[in-house]
Parts: sequence; structure tokens; C-alpha cells
Amino acid sequence: MAGIILAEAAAIYDGKQATQTQSYGPEARGGASRSEVVISDGEIDHPEVLSPDVVVTLSQEAYQKFAKSVKAGGLLIVDEDRVQTSGDFNGIKIPVARIAHETTGRAITANTVALGVLVGLTNLVSREAIEKAVTARAPKGTEEMNRKALQAGFAEAEHVKAAV
Amino acid sequence: MAGIILAEAAAIYDGKQATQTQSYGPEARGGASRSEVVISDGEIDHPEVLSPDVVVTLSQEAYQKFAKSVKAGGLLIVDEDRVQTSGDFNGIKIPVARIAHETTGRAITANTVALGVLVGLTNLVSREAIEKAVTARAPKGTEEMNRKALQAGFAEAEHVKAAV
Repeated sequence: MAGIILAEAAAIYDGKQATQTQSYGPEARGGASRSEVVISDGEIDHPEVLSPDVVVTLSQEAYQKFAKSVKAGGLLIVDEDRVQTSGDFNGIKIPVARIAHETTGRAITANTVALGVLVGLTNLVSREAIEKAVTARAPKGTEEMNRKALQAGFAEAEHVKAAV
Repeated sequence: MAGIILAEAAAIYDGKQATQTQSYGPEARGGASRSEVVISDGEIDHPEVLSPDVVVTLSQEAYQKFAKSVKAGGLLIVDEDRVQTSGDFNGIKIPVARIAHETTGRAITANTVALGVLVGLTNLVSREAIEKAVTARAPKGTEEMNRKALQAGFAEAEHVKAAV
């Protein structure tokens, strides 16, 4: 769903082109699911992502499967508490789930926090666009909670940038 | 969302592999949006669909853009009331939106009716799997309405098959 929201932010609110691909295998129930998003100013010929500019992994399984696909010089973001990184780790550790818990008390908002961190660090889409897209997709009654989670993600991104 | 539900039915409930790709352009807001689903017993190398086995178009714009992509001998399903077909039309016309309206009174359930028609005609996934996937994704309080819409789609598929 975070991938869909990112693609919608780009296409509906920022006027770009976007594709979003979800892959499901036998591990779909609770395991590592993957979403790939392509954002472009022009037409997108191939929705397939070979070496992503940015990879976000929020679980150990996702880290092991997908972290190495990030392109050289790309950005790798991992959940600090949930991912045991390898020796050659070259990315940014963010306590995504912990921020979600402290901000909203709801684990499910970790994805929204991650979107805030991602957009705050990369400006892949505008903050206005991601906020509109998150609000439009938030289940009724959870809009404010998700806005707070997103803002907490933005704040954490600023914190990281200030520290670099 | 119908594409996501179909992919989840295949992967989570039928134990297959699946990918689902959504494409968004400047037309994303209210225009023709497109979802591509690949279902396989084995691993899926490319989520990109070049010539689909089945194409479902529920609007004129979608028909004009995507109907011709269906592979030779493939199945094309269109909304009978919403699509003006061309002279060389070779597919199945189903009053999807009308069935949704008559069954639930809610236009938004047309996508669920379409899933019922699609699965009823093709058995791409099992009826049990699509019913579980629809129910799991239905907004709270709309589960029964969506189950009815799905059943109406199944019934229409039987009707079509009996007539062939």
C-alpha cells in the first residue's frame, strides 16, 4: 500500500508518470512482500526495476532479499531495530517501527513513517503530494493518525540530514 | 484494487506466484487507470504484460487504449453499456455496471462484479480464493455487499457459458 500511495502522490498530485508493481509469492501471507515504484517525468516503457535508486527494507527477510539490488551510489534505508545489517552495510538506519509506535501507538503506521522518511530524504515527490496521497488512502478515521506518522517521518529525515 | 485482489487471490489463497502492476499517468485522476496481473505456477521473471490472455475494459477510454493488446485467441470482456465496440469486436459484452447497480445499488461494486465474471469465465483463480481475497480487502461493513456483487458476477458468467 505504501508503494501505491507513493505512485499516486507522483501521478495524481505531482503530475508525473508512475508505475507500481507488487510481487506476491508463496510467502505473501505475512512474509516479505515487495513493491516497486517507477517515477518519471516522461513515459515509462518498462515498469520493471532492475537496480533501484532507493531501497527501503523494514524486515530482515526484505533486507536479505532486496538490499543488494540497490544501485551503486543509491540509497538504502533499513529499520534499525528490525534489520541486522551485514558488515558491508552502507545505508541509513532509521527506527521506523519504533517511531510509529511512539507517534501513534499503532504498528500499522510504520509504512506511513517510512514514506515520510523516504520523501523527506529524497524529495522523490513533494511533501504536499505525499500528504494528500496518504490522507486519500487512509482508512476513514485514521487520517489524522497517518498525517502524524508522516510528519514524524519528515522530522526524522531532517534529523538525519542535520547529522550528516 | 481489483487487480490487487486478483493477485492476492492467486498468491495468498491459491498458493501461486503473482505480480500486479498499476500504471498511472497524468490521466490518473478519474481517467483510464490500468492494472496488469501475471499469475504463474512458477517464478515470474518479468511482471510486464505484452499481450494479455484476458483483457477487461469497463470504460470507453480503457477499451480504446487496451482492447487491442489482447493476444490472438485471448478473451476480451467489455462493459456492454459503457463501451461502444468497434466493427471487428470479438469479445464478450457484459452489463457489469448495471449488474452492480441492480445487485447492490452501489456503482463502486462494479469492479467486484467484474472479478466475479472474470473468474467465473476463466477459473484463473478458484472461486474460494477470490471470495476470500474480496472479503479481506472490502472496507469494513461492505463485506456482504461485495460478496453479493461477486456472486452476481459468477452467476452472469454461468449465464454466458450456458448461452454459448
